[in-house]
Amino acid sequence: MPDYRSLESAIGYQFKGEELIGLALTHRSASGQNNNERLEFLGDSILNFIVGESLFRLFPDAKEGQLSRLRASLVKGTTLAELGQQFQLNQYIKVGPGELKSGGTKRSSTLADAVEAIIGAIYLESGFEICQKVVNEWFETRFKGLSLTDTVKDNKTRLQETLQARKLPLPSYNIVSIEGKSHCQTFKIECVIEGISTPFLGEGTSRRHAEQQAAGKALTALS
Amino acid sequence: MPDYRSLESAIGYQFKGEELIGLALTHRSASGQNNNERLEFLGDSILNFIVGESLFRLFPDAKEGQLSRLRASLVKGTTLAELGQQFQLNQYIKVGPGELKSGGTKRSSTLADAVEAIIGAIYLESGFEICQKVVNEWFETRFKGLSLTDTVKDNKTRLQETLQARKLPLPSYNIVSIEGKSHCQTFKIECVIEGISTPFLGEGTSRRHAEQQAAGKALTALS
Repeated sequence: MPDYRSLESAIGYQFKGEELIGLALTHRSASGQNNNERLEFLGDSILNFIVGESLFRLFPDAKEGQLSRLRASLVKGTTLAELGQQFQLNQYIKVGPGELKSGGTKRSSTLADAVEAIIGAIYLESGFEICQKVVNEWFETRFKGLSLTDTVKDNKTRLQETLQARKLPLPSYNIVSIEGKSHCQTFKIECVIEGISTPFLGEGTSRRHAEQQAAGKALTALS
Repeated sequence: MPDYRSLESAIGYQFKGEELIGLALTHRSASGQNNNERLEFLGDSILNFIVGESLFRLFPDAKEGQLSRLRASLVKGTTLAELGQQFQLNQYIKVGPGELKSGGTKRSSTLADAVEAIIGAIYLESGFEICQKVVNEWFETRFKGLSLTDTVKDNKTRLQETLQARKLPLPSYNIVSIEGKSHCQTFKIECVIEGISTPFLGEGTSRRHAEQQAAGKALTALS
């Protein structure tokens, strides 16, 4: 059986048994039945609540939309994968042989899923309050680094909110063209809103930039 | 001050003070600052966790995807609005004068938001365990009515999951045509997947049916 002592020291929680932590570290490629997917489901919703609750207390003047955006930045896959790296989870995660060949235990999504599954496992063993304490410690420095100015909305978000408020259908973004060689491509994207006759065109050096520009034009036209 | 006794009896929880319940029942149209939006943010994430946790225990053999779909059916706006009606929240919710004219306190989204805000208020007053007990009682009959056969996936969901698993872009659905008079329209919808040259056409008497048919054709082509 693996020695979880250094892992337990890294996460700041000592498991009472080996069963739950073992399950939390079993990727679906290692076992079709006994893997961490159910624990991940549980952990994901606990994490959302714990982080949301902390932000609610830390930012008493923040509006609901600001709290949502701050939380999204903390619980997203890349942040969780960073935590997984910090805990060196790759040394513990069990993956199947195929997954192992493709660098499985270091994959971001595998790390992030295992982090959520560990949260689920701690909750099942020790209940909500201890789980909350442990998870808040993981995020302590990240909480301190936040400020409400992080919550300025991008064009795509603002467009979506504007359309929702007017009960209009949500936009879709289609690639019109991609030109140039791979290191200096120009993307042309159209933002299509049903019921509004002309698509809005955006251009940029990445798909994301082109979409933001197209969304910006749509916002201007709607305002 | 309003008399909350019959409300407290309906929700199965007695508030210690009037401040939090008053805030939970204040729609943003009634006050720009002191309204229920922050409590709703908090309550939404608690609700997701409580319902997810109960499903995790009630369905020990369910896979993560099934748990997600069961939860989505329970925490969606229409279910929460039903709870709000059951609690007769419309008699208590404070809305602004403009909102009142348009039947504001009976609006589904207003009711659903207030239900989530009440959950947030109970949590702040009494902590997680009492909040969990109260909310689980609200959902008790709904939990009993669930079965894993409710989780059969529709074509659009299956297509989305198939594309995600293959790291392909998500589909977009566009209206090709709507024919016929309003009571017997025929919708033609195309399902477009970037990188796959031909769109898949679906037809039906509602937009939803046409989209499902188009997604079904895309699934067949991909399999």
